[in-house]
Amino acid sequence: MTKLNDTHDPTRQSLVTAANQPDCDFPIQNLPFGVFDSAGRNPRGGVAIGDQIFDLSAGLEAGLFSGAALDAARAASCPVLNGLMARGVDSASALRARLSDLLRADGPERFRVEGLADRLLVPIASARIYLPVDARNFTDFVCSTFHALRITRRPPDAELPPVLQFMPVAYHGRASSVQVSGERVRRPHGQSKPADQPVQFGPSKMFDFELEVGAFIASGNELGSPIPIESAASQIFGYCLLNDWSARDVQFWESMLGPFLGKSLATTISPWVVTAEALRPFHTKVFKPRPDWPEPLPYLRSERDQREGGVDIDLEAYILTQRMRDSRLQPTRITNTNLRFAYWTFAQMVAHHTSNGCNLQPGDILGGGTISGPSDDSRACLAEYAEPLNLSNGEVRRYLEDGDEVIFKGRANREGYVSIGFGECRAHILPAHG
Amino acid sequence: MTKLNDTHDPTRQSLVTAANQPDCDFPIQNLPFGVFDSAGRNPRGGVAIGDQIFDLSAGLEAGLFSGAALDAARAASCPVLNGLMARGVDSASALRARLSDLLRADGPERFRVEGLADRLLVPIASARIYLPVDARNFTDFVCSTFHALRITRRPPDAELPPVLQFMPVAYHGRASSVQVSGERVRRPHGQSKPADQPVQFGPSKMFDFELEVGAFIASGNELGSPIPIESAASQIFGYCLLNDWSARDVQFWESMLGPFLGKSLATTISPWVVTAEALRPFHTKVFKPRPDWPEPLPYLRSERDQREGGVDIDLEAYILTQRMRDSRLQPTRITNTNLRFAYWTFAQMVAHHTSNGCNLQPGDILGGGTISGPSDDSRACLAEYAEPLNLSNGEVRRYLEDGDEVIFKGRANREGYVSIGFGECRAHILPAHG
Repeated sequence: MTKLNDTHDPTRQSLVTAANQPDCDFPIQNLPFGVFDSAGRNPRGGVAIGDQIFDLSAGLEAGLFSGAALDAARAASCPVLNGLMARGVDSASALRARLSDLLRADGPERFRVEGLADRLLVPIASARIYLPVDARNFTDFVCSTFHALRITRRPPDAELPPVLQFMPVAYHGRASSVQVSGERVRRPHGQSKPADQPVQFGPSKMFDFELEVGAFIASGNELGSPIPIESAASQIFGYCLLNDWSARDVQFWESMLGPFLGKSLATTISPWVVTAEALRPFHTKVFKPRPDWPEPLPYLRSERDQREGGVDIDLEAYILTQRMRDSRLQPTRITNTNLRFAYWTFAQMVAHHTSNGCNLQPGDILGGGTISGPSDDSRACLAEYAEPLNLSNGEVRRYLEDGDEVIFKGRANREGYVSIGFGECRAHILPAHG
Repeated sequence: MTKLNDTHDPTRQSLVTAANQPDCDFPIQNLPFGVFDSAGRNPRGGVAIGDQIFDLSAGLEAGLFSGAALDAARAASCPVLNGLMARGVDSASALRARLSDLLRADGPERFRVEGLADRLLVPIASARIYLPVDARNFTDFVCSTFHALRITRRPPDAELPPVLQFMPVAYHGRASSVQVSGERVRRPHGQSKPADQPVQFGPSKMFDFELEVGAFIASGNELGSPIPIESAASQIFGYCLLNDWSARDVQFWESMLGPFLGKSLATTISPWVVTAEALRPFHTKVFKPRPDWPEPLPYLRSERDQREGGVDIDLEAYILTQRMRDSRLQPTRITNTNLRFAYWTFAQMVAHHTSNGCNLQPGDILGGGTISGPSDDSRACLAEYAEPLNLSNGEVRRYLEDGDEVIFKGRANREGYVSIGFGECRAHILPAHG
């Protein structure tokens, strides 16, 4: 594991006491970036710490930053984080190092920060949270053989399309309909062709989620200049949870040229950008789905990426139905999987995406595909279920129903390190327009 | 044919005499919008007239506009035309009406305009021409059965995938790599799997063009609010020529989820946005590829669209090789087709694209697909050729070679109206990086 620094120090605690609880998603080792608004001010950048948001604009006004951290804080205090991402991972690292020092329980400036707390810290519960980037482009990849097999109803040892062995297969998604956790999603209309019935147009009857991890591009590349695999990892600024909503009946009928309206209705992402730096302790070797599969072609292979390009992030999907809400029940967990089952790395996705000269832009989102694992409880979308799903309160789901809420959680754990989390990626399904 | 106005008057001539030549692409009946720069000033909006560009910023400074035309001219004088498009087609119509009056040979303000000509008019030949929009999203459709058949080597009466009868099948293209005519295109590297050979990575050996017409979206729609077919035509601001460059070897191997790196290397568009208003006299009824195909489903059907949703635009592709340039030969025409062979209308593409609630944004580009017709000379890409193509100077092409230039032209003709053209969509192919 390369290049750990003081921000990863597991003994470090925060002056924000909620950040020191063992189940907190946002300990001082995390410091994810987001965009928020409070008390009728304008959307601006902040950093989650415990149950608070550190307001970067307020930190700038208080003169807390200098040098590289000042430049990064200025870029990060904007209404979108694309400018921060464009500066690259080292710039954000300088800002995180300074924030970690400012927010330490035992830091030399503790009393200064506490004296300014009314201005610097905003409770997450009282803030409105926005999309962290102006997402110009969204690309989604296939990185789980388990998903590819189950969604086509093939047994675990079945043949897969050969191309899956050689490249992270992908399609361009729709960037304009990316929205932030909490915004509701309306069941779409669309064409479908049920077996033995004519082609029809109406509300989707097979509305599904897909549990994914998204990555945000840092500075990107010029058109015509591929990013080599050796430097591709440094083009990943950070990560989020991503729900690639899928109207399966629409998707299965339309997809002569790949997914289109079955997916473009909406994509929901979690609001906090967990930096690649914060996730560094949780990297692991790349998963190999089949022992007989070939090594990656040279443009997709680096020793370091093979050794540590995987990321160990526990991922969960929950469902909260209207009946559960009425009965004050907690959401039921329906999926428990892990990003380490992805057999392509985000560095490989970057190298492949740019291998033809295609330009990536700061804030572009790469979706790592539906992250299903080998076990039944790791099925990361409903289309992988051969049988209806029984929920804990006796309800049954084949696909999502109006009023259902789908909630994703993600958390990186490793012995000897403080666990960090993503917060929620959540959305409520509205009925189709009449 | 509905709503013709004075700007369509075929007897109207321009004080810019080059605009009155019968073969001129930019007569006073056209007035297409673009973005240009001259003499080291900033990129800004203009309107092509004959061999000149009317500088909208200069027109504003001279106080030539008022009312709705003034608002539109302000929006159109920016470095991108998205703001003009967002205002909708009526706003642009007001500006075009005023420009037509200003640029008339027999207009009451002729002497005023001629007195200001040094400031108002910039020769196209001395200007640098930019991408007219900040293209946030690019979607490409399948609208020619002739293309769909030939590219899969099927005879003209063969079965087609049933979905083609029911919807304008589409995929999301890459918006970041859209570039303007004149910018060079580099042959991409990519994975391919030639028959009886292992998977390989290297420069594409099957580099191709696709002759298309692109449409620019006007104001667009909010996420979750489909655009009904009845109002979809008014969401088309204007049109361009579009070359959807295609690395066929890459495309054919990768496309499990549709086109990706085989297409995302670059897309070239012509710089002048020919308005939907200017093309109104050239509309025609929709082409029906097969007599037994069903009527469009209700959400894609309007009587008016069926009657006049087609557009009669002659489209040509030319090739200019290095040997032709060395011998001072003219480009060879290799394709002569017409947009009227598209069997879906741009209004249907808008209605379909938004039918699931997906939001279109001002300046989004919809590609109408490779517009091949029934005859051999209307093959609109090289992949449709079963045999190599013989050029007029004895050279032979299976696919494009380094140094080739591909040039598209487009022109709308109709008895009783002044023909209007698109200018060129042109690019030179650079060799792959070593």
